[in-house]
Amino acid sequence: MIYKDGKAEGIKIAYIGGGSRGWAHTLMSDLATTDIMNGEIRLYDIDHEAARANEIIGNRIKDLPRCRSVWNYVAVDSLREALTGADFVIISIMPATFDEMESDVHTPEKYGIYQSVGDTTGPGGILRAMRSIPMFREIAAAVRDYCPDAWVINYTNPMTVCTWTLYREFPKIKAFGCCHEVFQMQRILMKALEDVTGIRADRREDIKTTVTGVNHFTWMTDVRYKNMDLYPVYDEFVRKYGDEGYLIGKDEGWENNFFDSAEMVKMNLFRRFGVIAAAGDRHLAEFCGPYYLSSPEVVRKWKFLLTPVSFRKKELADRLVRSRKLVAGEEDFIIWRSGEEGIDQIAAILGLRELVTNVNLPNVGQVADLPLGAVVETNAVFTSGTVTPVMAGAMPESIRPHVSRISEIQRTIVEAGFTCDRELAFEAFMLDPLVQLPMEDARLLFDEMCENTKEYLKMYY
Amino acid sequence: MIYKDGKAEGIKIAYIGGGSRGWAHTLMSDLATTDIMNGEIRLYDIDHEAARANEIIGNRIKDLPRCRSVWNYVAVDSLREALTGADFVIISIMPATFDEMESDVHTPEKYGIYQSVGDTTGPGGILRAMRSIPMFREIAAAVRDYCPDAWVINYTNPMTVCTWTLYREFPKIKAFGCCHEVFQMQRILMKALEDVTGIRADRREDIKTTVTGVNHFTWMTDVRYKNMDLYPVYDEFVRKYGDEGYLIGKDEGWENNFFDSAEMVKMNLFRRFGVIAAAGDRHLAEFCGPYYLSSPEVVRKWKFLLTPVSFRKKELADRLVRSRKLVAGEEDFIIWRSGEEGIDQIAAILGLRELVTNVNLPNVGQVADLPLGAVVETNAVFTSGTVTPVMAGAMPESIRPHVSRISEIQRTIVEAGFTCDRELAFEAFMLDPLVQLPMEDARLLFDEMCENTKEYLKMYY
Amino acid sequence: MIYKDGKAEGIKIAYIGGGSRGWAHTLMSDLATTDIMNGEIRLYDIDHEAARANEIIGNRIKDLPRCRSVWNYVAVDSLREALTGADFVIISIMPATFDEMESDVHTPEKYGIYQSVGDTTGPGGILRAMRSIPMFREIAAAVRDYCPDAWVINYTNPMTVCTWTLYREFPKIKAFGCCHEVFQMQRILMKALEDVTGIRADRREDIKTTVTGVNHFTWMTDVRYKNMDLYPVYDEFVRKYGDEGYLIGKDEGWENNFFDSAEMVKMNLFRRFGVIAAAGDRHLAEFCGPYYLSSPEVVRKWKFLLTPVSFRKKELADRLVRSRKLVAGEEDFIIWRSGEEGIDQIAAILGLRELVTNVNLPNVGQVADLPLGAVVETNAVFTSGTVTPVMAGAMPESIRPHVSRISEIQRTIVEAGFTCDRELAFEAFMLDPLVQLPMEDARLLFDEMCENTKEYLKMYY
Amino acid sequence: MIYKDGKAEGIKIAYIGGGSRGWAHTLMSDLATTDIMNGEIRLYDIDHEAARANEIIGNRIKDLPRCRSVWNYVAVDSLREALTGADFVIISIMPATFDEMESDVHTPEKYGIYQSVGDTTGPGGILRAMRSIPMFREIAAAVRDYCPDAWVINYTNPMTVCTWTLYREFPKIKAFGCCHEVFQMQRILMKALEDVTGIRADRREDIKTTVTGVNHFTWMTDVRYKNMDLYPVYDEFVRKYGDEGYLIGKDEGWENNFFDSAEMVKMNLFRRFGVIAAAGDRHLAEFCGPYYLSSPEVVRKWKFLLTPVSFRKKELADRLVRSRKLVAGEEDFIIWRSGEEGIDQIAAILGLRELVTNVNLPNVGQVADLPLGAVVETNAVFTSGTVTPVMAGAMPESIRPHVSRISEIQRTIVEAGFTCDRELAFEAFMLDPLVQLPMEDARLLFDEMCENTKEYLKMYY
Repeated sequence: MIYKDGKAEGIKIAYIGGGSRGWAHTLMSDLATTDIMNGEIRLYDIDHEAARANEIIGNRIKDLPRCRSVWNYVAVDSLREALTGADFVIISIMPATFDEMESDVHTPEKYGIYQSVGDTTGPGGILRAMRSIPMFREIAAAVRDYCPDAWVINYTNPMTVCTWTLYREFPKIKAFGCCHEVFQMQRILMKALEDVTGIRADRREDIKTTVTGVNHFTWMTDVRYKNMDLYPVYDEFVRKYGDEGYLIGKDEGWENNFFDSAEMVKMNLFRRFGVIAAAGDRHLAEFCGPYYLSSPEVVRKWKFLLTPVSFRKKELADRLVRSRKLVAGEEDFIIWRSGEEGIDQIAAILGLRELVTNVNLPNVGQVADLPLGAVVETNAVFTSGTVTPVMAGAMPESIRPHVSRISEIQRTIVEAGFTCDRELAFEAFMLDPLVQLPMEDARLLFDEMCENTKEYLKMYY
Repeated sequence: MIYKDGKAEGIKIAYIGGGSRGWAHTLMSDLATTDIMNGEIRLYDIDHEAARANEIIGNRIKDLPRCRSVWNYVAVDSLREALTGADFVIISIMPATFDEMESDVHTPEKYGIYQSVGDTTGPGGILRAMRSIPMFREIAAAVRDYCPDAWVINYTNPMTVCTWTLYREFPKIKAFGCCHEVFQMQRILMKALEDVTGIRADRREDIKTTVTGVNHFTWMTDVRYKNMDLYPVYDEFVRKYGDEGYLIGKDEGWENNFFDSAEMVKMNLFRRFGVIAAAGDRHLAEFCGPYYLSSPEVVRKWKFLLTPVSFRKKELADRLVRSRKLVAGEEDFIIWRSGEEGIDQIAAILGLRELVTNVNLPNVGQVADLPLGAVVETNAVFTSGTVTPVMAGAMPESIRPHVSRISEIQRTIVEAGFTCDRELAFEAFMLDPLVQLPMEDARLLFDEMCENTKEYLKMYY
Repeated sequence: MIYKDGKAEGIKIAYIGGGSRGWAHTLMSDLATTDIMNGEIRLYDIDHEAARANEIIGNRIKDLPRCRSVWNYVAVDSLREALTGADFVIISIMPATFDEMESDVHTPEKYGIYQSVGDTTGPGGILRAMRSIPMFREIAAAVRDYCPDAWVINYTNPMTVCTWTLYREFPKIKAFGCCHEVFQMQRILMKALEDVTGIRADRREDIKTTVTGVNHFTWMTDVRYKNMDLYPVYDEFVRKYGDEGYLIGKDEGWENNFFDSAEMVKMNLFRRFGVIAAAGDRHLAEFCGPYYLSSPEVVRKWKFLLTPVSFRKKELADRLVRSRKLVAGEEDFIIWRSGEEGIDQIAAILGLRELVTNVNLPNVGQVADLPLGAVVETNAVFTSGTVTPVMAGAMPESIRPHVSRISEIQRTIVEAGFTCDRELAFEAFMLDPLVQLPMEDARLLFDEMCENTKEYLKMYY
Repeated sequence: MIYKDGKAEGIKIAYIGGGSRGWAHTLMSDLATTDIMNGEIRLYDIDHEAARANEIIGNRIKDLPRCRSVWNYVAVDSLREALTGADFVIISIMPATFDEMESDVHTPEKYGIYQSVGDTTGPGGILRAMRSIPMFREIAAAVRDYCPDAWVINYTNPMTVCTWTLYREFPKIKAFGCCHEVFQMQRILMKALEDVTGIRADRREDIKTTVTGVNHFTWMTDVRYKNMDLYPVYDEFVRKYGDEGYLIGKDEGWENNFFDSAEMVKMNLFRRFGVIAAAGDRHLAEFCGPYYLSSPEVVRKWKFLLTPVSFRKKELADRLVRSRKLVAGEEDFIIWRSGEEGIDQIAAILGLRELVTNVNLPNVGQVADLPLGAVVETNAVFTSGTVTPVMAGAMPESIRPHVSRISEIQRTIVEAGFTCDRELAFEAFMLDPLVQLPMEDARLLFDEMCENTKEYLKMYY
């Protein structure tokens, strides 16, 4: 890689995963919009056909009129090929398939346990973690062997556990985990600002926040717009919309969108704890036991939906159809700016800009009252060759019992994954706030979920 | 108080509580057995008749042939009279009556929540804490006003919350909480030592332990006899008896004794976590969610019983009958050495001996990974005018999620008690491992339990 | 203050000090160069004439052709007038006069103690601290009374002690201390980069650094330019110039400039400790005992000069002459961009931009191995209404003995100032690395220095 | 080793050193006085003749009338023989000879640096540390190889550095360092108690103390006798004797005894810092720079003496003469109880008693504000198979700058010893409070001291 005329040229990025054509296409599009970087993307997926399709799609982008930089896409056959010489590694894999996710999400329903997402926490999150840890150990080991100095960006859930695994396998890894849930909360705060005061902020980045917690169970302990403290503004907003939900400006109602909500969960959490919860309602609810998720009816009362995995399968099928059309040249790739920060982070690490944003990293003291080493989500400064956490301080005491409990469960599941200890994984399972079952039932459920996904859990037997 | 011929004479002890004639009589007896101290006991109970009965009983003890020291008993009418000039204050109260305890223990059964004790944790422990905090604030304030330099010994449950309250109300208080559950575990280790190796230890004090955790959810991270590490010994013991329970030498089976067990819970905890759990099975089980307590049948499988409050009422009635006989002179008080350490602790604080034993104190670092200020149970050195914690170090990671969760709940309930915040108390309630209910049901149960005991909860309304 | 068209209008800034016409004129000039803010500057100085002269000079600036924003200057007669309603408070005072500084710097020379600056550490720094603490207590108390929500920016030395005093007097103060020494080190690193690799960085801000330590004894534990680690580059630079000094591009030699050096001290510190020292040689040398400062000859060997206070007096006289000409209209104020960051920090706090830069703040964990509460210098994120420290982590062990010693001395002198305890100030004095004297001589020197400046030390007697 | 009738029989103790016949004979005598242990002592000294002489002397003891237990002494030729199978290892070596110590103590006098002992801190302590670290690495490695489970008791100075070295070389070592200086302070407090109040304590062990700091620079933050706080008592004592010294009951005046003093240094430290310094004046003075030690005249003013190494040589010669007589049977070994605690500690570790006393151990949090891992001196509980630190809490702020400085120097010298880095040792040297020299002179002195003792410093060249 070289710098020339203020640009970084010849960057080598290894992209691990991408078979589902979601994040991969988002990144391709974002890369096309930048004019300060170019280079090569090595595509590696265990589904080689998928990588090859992405290669074809990617290499056509440079000819599109709106494309502002040239990126060459190469599908490769091994992690080694992808990683050797890489400056950046992006991990966006699906741990197993939607069939396993179907078990993660829906098997617990037999026992009255409902999950709105099922990829982060709860019984589903724990099973997914059990599968993911061996995969991430393999990736971390390959990074150590082939590109120890590369920066590794993880987008895969369960975010905290996956990032933790990378560091535990290869402690010198330069990795961080990225998630856009916090951005969405900044957008809600923009709406609250306008709704309550009439002031319009231009961009969600103008809402400045102090982030703390763990991924998808993140909190904002301080929110500002210019010289204004937005805590009183949000308080007013919650008074107005907390009971009935906030839906203004939504294209379709929450009832028609499996990924939407009326923000009632986060507003209720603010009422309960006095701290702004900063992730989507569907994620937040899963950390809170059977409070917002005790039954499908209760879920509807809180105005969001349980996302069935069948819907995800349908979406995937649609994406694959579109992918085939893109490959066949029957449809044109559309370049848009996604709002994701991946390319901004890369640019900042390369010294082309400076960025302060939220990120998942091992705790070195940025969260004063979680154990050192636990992966936490706070702001960090991204700048030439460094990603340095910003102090988040002590957590508000009202949320500490909840967040520390989750962090302990995550540590336990990582330990279970590294020692291939199924009993310990079961201990983590029983600690989960959603797993409110007599031990005997918890055991039955856990065993069934393991059995359903056993192809990916051989190391635990 | 003066020292004379190696004795401490004229010690003034305020005894708060005692109406149930349990601990009070134990202490009276123990005091009679010492020959290095004497003095005055001021008896204060909100049931003045009870205090007066104890006065009469106590003052007869000095005439008994086995009595080795003279203690004068005086029933007083106010905390102020009891405390003014006191060297020591002993708190052993019943927060409310067995009627309230009946609600604590049995109301949750309607929702399938079973508690073996119900005075420390679980829904019962939380309601009891709500009642106790205002009482202990009052006592701590009175200590500050009338005898700020006195040593305060608490025997009341919920131990951790009550001791925490004393320190929060009056931070300079010299208080600690005492509990004998650890002693019982030392006795079991004596049996294990003999059973496995044939070696007989003379006294439970010869089993040296490193204690950590919170009261009734205490753990021994190191156990020794002379130069022998007892961890392998206990491991062998658990292999032998873990499946069927250990009952050798028990006077009656666990099935006939509401306070006994076959030690299967603690042995199972050792198997699960690799750390020696050091309290009675009935207490330990309550911290573990519906694992050992999911139904009365499961409880029997683990070979212990749920103690009905009706049984406690019957016992109390028996004690009151006996008390009346003692007062009437129809029966003689019997002096025995109870095995409790209260008088040893007093003697050590007075510089008459030195003692290392387990005690409940605010964390100043003795438990490295629980928050500072949280009340924890570890060893401490009792010696002239000081009770200084011994380092327990970091908790084993396997038990940390469980213990830290409990400690956070305890902090939350203390906060709720000091702010008289019923909603916050409900948050603590929902965090409890035994409260595995959908939020709606949790609310119903909590409200019913509050309603049942509302006479003592006025400050929360 | 209001926001309009992306500008902050009507900002109220209290400027405390400024009589020496140094920093005050720098700020006036910088304010004139911004086009995103305007407002009012209240000038308060105990020398009212000085404030009035600055008022006249300031109010003429808006008519200058290069002026881009309108600022109204008002000299006021009291701290109260200056502070009431202020959004920002800038403190840039001279604690006493150059006469006192003459004693600070030159009295110790009788005892063989040489100081190159004498305003931060060493015997001079300690006496100056003794005088400053009462002044800063008064300012902090006035901020609490008149503008508790204002942001307070301190430029006065001894920086650490003054900032610490602000926080100790008024713990909720939103204060920070600013110093440009780190910028100068960034410029040296630009030169090193070019010298060693031929690569030219555009701006000193492009050299990204991790700053740690205490003001004027600051260190860079990580230095980057784009994707390049500058540690090996600086290592090479020191190999090349460490023995003879680096002077390339200096307008005049160090021998002709009391504020210049050949950077030999910082290069030697790098050799000794393996960490980049990041302040001017004249400051760094003072923290190191009689290593670089053992005699005027040794100082010359290290290629810098001892700044005599007589020179400072002459400079001040020159500035006052110029000030009189500006007031009389005989000379025009010249607007230039100073390179200081004050207006950038203000703009960032107002949410007009984002800034990551070094700043002095109480330690909340950003320096892992200095005590909490000690004022330290690290990077911080300046953004809407917040200045949040960035994690600097643990200090390299090689420099920790030196930095922690200085920090302890600073804490001691603050304690002495708040308790008006001259003996404790003497203890701090004896702990100073430059005070290498038998106790008897240390006492004589301390007493003489106190006597010389006693007008400002009455509270210690 | 076996237990029989309440005794520990067949204990195997390796004694490393002993050639100077000081500590070795003390231990032999103490062992003879116990009736609860017996066993074998393997004597290893690089001076094999010395070991053999001790063997002969030792084996005669069992026939003496006052001898209460049988110990067999065996001189061995290698560390391996000494350590294999050992239950305990006692290290009491002289790092090099009194010739080297002569350089340590007296060479600095040329530069006006006076040391009263010269074996712990100051330039002498640092050179001694440089020699000792390689020796202790060797011993620790041998313990790891031959008796990893043995308990290792160090008596050698520099105590802190030697103990630190043992742990750094073999982190799992069960070692601690013992020193009797604190006992002496307990005796002084007994005298103060009697002098001020007329109350006589029976034994120095009855003065209960909270110890903190580093060896020979130890402090008592709490001192008690029975229910009495001795701080006010000592305060009164210092008022009475602080100016002129306390000498009552001393057999000979401090002017005639190189190891005595009038306790003026410790009383002055109490006045300065408000904390009780708890070591001999001769040691304490060395940590305080040229305060009490600025010249021989000043030393006399503080009423103690500089111990010349020639005197130590003479004493050694006397001991060797006596040793030869003992070997030849011309003189009888006299059994006395020394007041040292070695055999009590051994008995406690074997579970034959319990002991709370001061000891040097790595910091695991017992001193809250010194770095973890630094060797500190606090109380610890000695009991069956464990030596567990008692919480000393945070150090008083007045002494923290001094103690933390010393601890940092000790860490630096350990680092220098392990990396064989002479330059780093010189950095430690310059940090020492007694080394108040211009850097050039410091270098000359350090080089001369290294040259004088170079036979033991080869690894640094």
